Amino acid sequence: MDYRGRLKRLQSVLAEKRLDGLLVTSLPNIRYLCGFTGSAAALVVLPDSCYFFTDGRYTQQAHEEVRAAKTKVARKAALAAAGEWLAATGKKREPKKLGVDGEHLSLAEAARLRKMLGPTFRVRQASALVERLRMVKDEEEIERLRQAALLGSTLFDTALKAIRPGVSEAEVAAEMEFAARRAGAEGMAFETIVAAGERSALPHGRASTAAIPGRGLVVCDFGVILAGYCSDMTRTVYLGRPSAAERYVYEAVREAQLAAIDAVRPGRSVGEVDRAARNVLKKKGLARYFTHSTGHGVGLEIHEAPRVAREQSEILQPGMVITIEPGVYLPGRGGVRIEDMVVVKEQRCEVLAPVCKELTTV
Amino acid sequence: MDYRGRLKRLQSVLAEKRLDGLLVTSLPNIRYLCGFTGSAAALVVLPDSCYFFTDGRYTQQAHEEVRAAKTKVARKAALAAAGEWLAATGKKREPKKLGVDGEHLSLAEAARLRKMLGPTFRVRQASALVERLRMVKDEEEIERLRQAALLGSTLFDTALKAIRPGVSEAEVAAEMEFAARRAGAEGMAFETIVAAGERSALPHGRASTAAIPGRGLVVCDFGVILAGYCSDMTRTVYLGRPSAAERYVYEAVREAQLAAIDAVRPGRSVGEVDRAARNVLKKKGLARYFTHSTGHGVGLEIHEAPRVAREQSEILQPGMVITIEPGVYLPGRGGVRIEDMVVVKEQRCEVLAPVCKELTTV
Repeated sequence: MDYRGRLKRLQSVLAEKRLDGLLVTSLPNIRYLCGFTGSAAALVVLPDSCYFFTDGRYTQQAHEEVRAAKTKVARKAALAAAGEWLAATGKKREPKKLGVDGEHLSLAEAARLRKMLGPTFRVRQASALVERLRMVKDEEEIERLRQAALLGSTLFDTALKAIRPGVSEAEVAAEMEFAARRAGAEGMAFETIVAAGERSALPHGRASTAAIPGRGLVVCDFGVILAGYCSDMTRTVYLGRPSAAERYVYEAVREAQLAAIDAVRPGRSVGEVDRAARNVLKKKGLARYFTHSTGHGVGLEIHEAPRVAREQSEILQPGMVITIEPGVYLPGRGGVRIEDMVVVKEQRCEVLAPVCKELTTV
Repeated sequence: MDYRGRLKRLQSVLAEKRLDGLLVTSLPNIRYLCGFTGSAAALVVLPDSCYFFTDGRYTQQAHEEVRAAKTKVARKAALAAAGEWLAATGKKREPKKLGVDGEHLSLAEAARLRKMLGPTFRVRQASALVERLRMVKDEEEIERLRQAALLGSTLFDTALKAIRPGVSEAEVAAEMEFAARRAGAEGMAFETIVAAGERSALPHGRASTAAIPGRGLVVCDFGVILAGYCSDMTRTVYLGRPSAAERYVYEAVREAQLAAIDAVRPGRSVGEVDRAARNVLKKKGLARYFTHSTGHGVGLEIHEAPRVAREQSEILQPGMVITIEPGVYLPGRGGVRIEDMVVVKEQRCEVLAPVCKELTTV
């Protein structure tokens, strides 16, 4: 990964924002900037250098992983060590402006940091600077996302084999997760959703111990982590023979999803993509049952910028990777959601792991 | 679960602290107080009432789960809805003091909240009020923790069957996680650690794709979530025939762990328990290779108060559930850790899932 390039781009952003430094506290941001995959770290980015802080548990791992930053292993928590080091460094200079991301620093941590820094650095809110860089993926990242999406997509076959009336949702999830691990995934990107029958109307129906009923819709939403990158995919299948009404809902969601994918192209806003899905469902009289947004960015985290939602104005750029996942949820009856990951190309977009989305019956 | 009892106890704490309300933003704290298990919520505790906020995705789930609080489903994020509601409520009264937990509210969220509240409520830091209640488990919680620990402990048998030279650490973890799911676990409590050979010297050696070598130590640290409660257990096994030196290290850790368990009794401080383990390792000349603390509380979260660590002064009380997990890590050679969960009783303590800790060779 091009850690030096990322650091340089961030340093130019700091110069633009007139910040003398940035304290990075979100672990995915730290991983993005220097490669560290552990669970305790802080990163200080200065105009012409970068310092990585961790504690004694990660001495060896930091040595193996961290690039583009000088590593400092402390006997205290990483954030405290970074604060202390900044205070000591700052003493030799005029008071300076230190950016922190208020979304990734708790109120209590901020209070402790300000106390440590004293008059050396003034803390300024500087949100999402790294997230904005992360929004556009480079080639190596897109390749990793593609591999994650391809591995993830194979779990749909596992689900198709496991879904049977009387089997619990959790057992289906267990089979999928086992298959993921055996195929080399580091873990699941989020709690696997297997929601059958009435439960398919819950947009966040984590696999429960409920038995799958004899007939009805089953929503499967699943993703893996591979080489640090997340996949995210949803398919909805039908147990038994769907009614005409159920088929109508399924086809409406499928049409909405295809329309949204078709709307993805550089220069357009994410809000337009959301609208493309919503317009189809409106025509079908189902818009009010589409209760969430159309998608989200995906990368080192399962939910990243941009949000593909109503009234969001972010402009699509080549290299962005987003999900397209409209759904319709009829309370007490059932739900349908269909989701793919797409990468924005120079023109239009490409589905990362194309898998059949005709209505599959089991 | 006794949600009303918990709420009452929290309300007396608020009275003691002279707070007119508490905004609870940590999901495990919210679950503890009102039973909600979803991923988007805020809870407002007032002297004689309690309000639960979530968004439209959780209408049905909130209805099914939330107890001891009035539910308000909002069209916006739960925290924003809670802030707005507080501002509207506060207008009818004198400015009041609202406690927030700075550890569970980001700097950015706090800024948005203060803006919403205007002059109606003054925000005061009030940390760990709910965590302190959660530290002492009631009988129903202890029973759930026992069930989680028992289920978790069966995974050690799975590991023993799976650990073979040439098999990857990740495959062993996959077998364990599959067994956990099939046995009814909701998921793993943390990333399963399977660290073989030199990697056993990494205290946080998540299962990697590395193949297990022909001989050496293998540390397995694993836990499940069952009915919301976490288990946590570590065993170290040996592939092949250990040398006298390796046996010495293993026995030292085992002795340290038993000494620490023996030191657990109500009225003692957690620091004394830590010291009991450390003293054994000191006598064996291994203290400097014990690079972390002796244990931690466990419950709805895998890491809870109290920390069982050097210079911590929390006094053990009946009903606390903590881990006892000393370890010795020899860089480049290997490591040993042995961990059990114990519950503090009226006198001494009880190991929740007693499993053999003689050195097992595979």
